[in-house]
Amino acid sequence: MKETIKSILLLWVLATSLSGYGQNPSDVAAQRHQEMMAILYTQPKIPIKTIGILVYDGYNTLDAMGPYHILSQIMGSKVFFVAKNKGMIKNQSGLQIKVDTSFTEVSKLDILVIPGGAKETLMQTQDSVTLNWIRKIDKTTTYTTSVCTGAWILGASGLLKGKTATTNWYRAEEMLKIYGANFKEERWVKDGKYWTSAGVTAGMDMSLAIIDELMGKKYTQGVMLDLEYDPKPPYNAGTPKKTEPIVADMMKEMYDMLMLPFIKGLKK
Amino acid sequence: MKETIKSILLLWVLATSLSGYGQNPSDVAAQRHQEMMAILYTQPKIPIKTIGILVYDGYNTLDAMGPYHILSQIMGSKVFFVAKNKGMIKNQSGLQIKVDTSFTEVSKLDILVIPGGAKETLMQTQDSVTLNWIRKIDKTTTYTTSVCTGAWILGASGLLKGKTATTNWYRAEEMLKIYGANFKEERWVKDGKYWTSAGVTAGMDMSLAIIDELMGKKYTQGVMLDLEYDPKPPYNAGTPKKTEPIVADMMKEMYDMLMLPFIKGLKK
Repeated sequence: MKETIKSILLLWVLATSLSGYGQNPSDVAAQRHQEMMAILYTQPKIPIKTIGILVYDGYNTLDAMGPYHILSQIMGSKVFFVAKNKGMIKNQSGLQIKVDTSFTEVSKLDILVIPGGAKETLMQTQDSVTLNWIRKIDKTTTYTTSVCTGAWILGASGLLKGKTATTNWYRAEEMLKIYGANFKEERWVKDGKYWTSAGVTAGMDMSLAIIDELMGKKYTQGVMLDLEYDPKPPYNAGTPKKTEPIVADMMKEMYDMLMLPFIKGLKK
Repeated sequence: MKETIKSILLLWVLATSLSGYGQNPSDVAAQRHQEMMAILYTQPKIPIKTIGILVYDGYNTLDAMGPYHILSQIMGSKVFFVAKNKGMIKNQSGLQIKVDTSFTEVSKLDILVIPGGAKETLMQTQDSVTLNWIRKIDKTTTYTTSVCTGAWILGASGLLKGKTATTNWYRAEEMLKIYGANFKEERWVKDGKYWTSAGVTAGMDMSLAIIDELMGKKYTQGVMLDLEYDPKPPYNAGTPKKTEPIVADMMKEMYDMLMLPFIKGLKK
């Protein structure tokens, strides 16, 4: 469905208020109204007003779009993309999205999401403007998060030092070690306010877990129904251990061919 | 990871060819090369060159971005967005993407994907330019597909008449009946070349199932590893039956408030 739960709820609240529905406590409809409001019209435990998704040319589409879509369901919040410079930003295959907010226009966020990618993500780990902005934003966030190799950028900012974290499966432990973080092989890992997810689609599970922490089980089930999120993957796979060894080995070899020269460059 | 398997494979093929790697059949590396090529460098059973995702103002972000991201992994294919008029197209919350291809520029597609939404999706079901274009494209597709309420648009084109199909859970049976289709409560349904998926995230499972049909198990496992697709939803929910009844009821009531006036308008 197009409408987020958030906007439907607001419409619903408005419509039921305007119609006077619920004014008579003996009314069955009014009771239902009260009951439903108590269940779904949930304010987050901690107020979440602004959620920023950091994007850069070459970001991985679903790393960004999954959390963007899911976190937009938090009542009372605004989700938007932020980039070093506003304007058109390209995903990994060249699709351009219009980003209306630049780093200089954002000094505070309640939730920061850092999506991953490949070579371009490594480039961000060397970009002091980006890393300084992340450190500044982190000072007042409720959640500072990364998806996939976005943990490399978050790590490069120094914020994962001594923390437990996860990232894309590719050379995960080795990559996090560069940034002083301890790799834990989980779908997502929470260490205080630092939440990190495994590769790509794990960002969606992490986003739902954040909603669950903020809004509880019933609200989260509402969001899941809005997303019809009852996944049926074609195979029990998706991690190196669950993948046929020859396929997992080949994927790693391919990524090595692409990434290793850059990673080796980093360490020097 | 940023790079699709497709582009990494092409790089890898190029690099190994250029280096002469694999020329000596007694070489262990060459054997490994052959073995890996046989496994992952898979041409689809049916050639898939062009994949078009139909977008319109108000489309649901993940309905479109999930299949866009996942189907881009098919070797030898190009995935792009198509709209009635090219230019900036807004998702349900106003994010603008740049669409470079208009209906008049596309007369053939191997795969057509129709994402859903809410009110704006119902508007498409009344738009003869859109429906005529879908009927024209369908004549030569290998797969004609819809995600979520995208099935309403596909249904309005007449192409689901007498077919078995699925759609978003909201009034699913009733909506498909309008278009002469038989609702089947599945994550995705295949009736000949017509594939339809349930709500939002189901489009990702349908896309993986299409890749599996075209490229087989090992390739699909490679794509799943690229997506790190080993979902861990916070609850066993996401369908009306699996959701706490009070939550499922309230969600339906909210959608009714938003959609029913428009749906009733349709039936007249």
